[in-house]
Amino acid sequence: MADQAIEEGLSFAPQFGADGLVTAVVTDAASGDVLMVAHMNKDALAKTIESGEAWYYSRSRKTLWKKGQQSGHVQRVVELRVDCDQDALWLKVEQHGGGACHTGRRSCFYRAVPLGQKGSVRLEFRDAEKAFDPGKVYKQP
Amino acid sequence: MADQAIEEGLSFAPQFGADGLVTAVVTDAASGDVLMVAHMNKDALAKTIESGEAWYYSRSRKTLWKKGQQSGHVQRVVELRVDCDQDALWLKVEQHGGGACHTGRRSCFYRAVPLGQKGSVRLEFRDAEKAFDPGKVYKQP
Repeated sequence: MADQAIEEGLSFAPQFGADGLVTAVVTDAASGDVLMVAHMNKDALAKTIESGEAWYYSRSRKTLWKKGQQSGHVQRVVELRVDCDQDALWLKVEQHGGGACHTGRRSCFYRAVPLGQKGSVRLEFRDAEKAFDPGKVYKQP
Repeated sequence: MADQAIEEGLSFAPQFGADGLVTAVVTDAASGDVLMVAHMNKDALAKTIESGEAWYYSRSRKTLWKKGQQSGHVQRVVELRVDCDQDALWLKVEQHGGGACHTGRRSCFYRAVPLGQKGSVRLEFRDAEKAFDPGKVYKQP
């Protein structure tokens, strides 16, 4: 498909990478905060569109997974958007169970990188309080 | 670095992929909307931290670039965050010049994917009005 059709057309033609994945940015539909960045393969994307709940592909576990499968912390997709070159997706979601991050935080982005520095940098916690206890939510294998 | 140190520590240890890149999600600091998804290599990240303005790495052009280099539409970074496993960054920016997308829109995510469907999907424009004229802003090579 030509660039012009991908960018200005209304055909949905997700551009999966060499690894078969597109990047998915997930924000909280209410607060607008970025909750997580994940990846989708063709199956994960089809299941998300069909069900209205978020499915992803885990690069580390090499498997399709439904967000909240184990924890119950599902994500209801309020809106799904695609970017100009159709290689990234934006999901606005209602996050169930208080948090999206496996560490127990609401968002995976709970540390800030201070700006205006050269060389090594020390992170700072931001909004890092736990929304749930991961030890209770995730059953040990 | 062990997972626990990466996730709970305050050492900044960005986990660049095999391609030397991390994913950068860029949101508008005022509206919270996702403006674009880009990539950073080590140099782009260092320049962004040092200058407080967004630099990226272009996978298509295989080069470091400062956002707004040609268009003047620079991004002042209000806050930079890193995610739990330190392979994704979130930049909250002040977008100069009205838009982040090379098509002239404020955001690259100007089309929605309707939910609840099986099979091929027809996109819908959302917030797709042009914020600037790309023909005037980008000089032809």
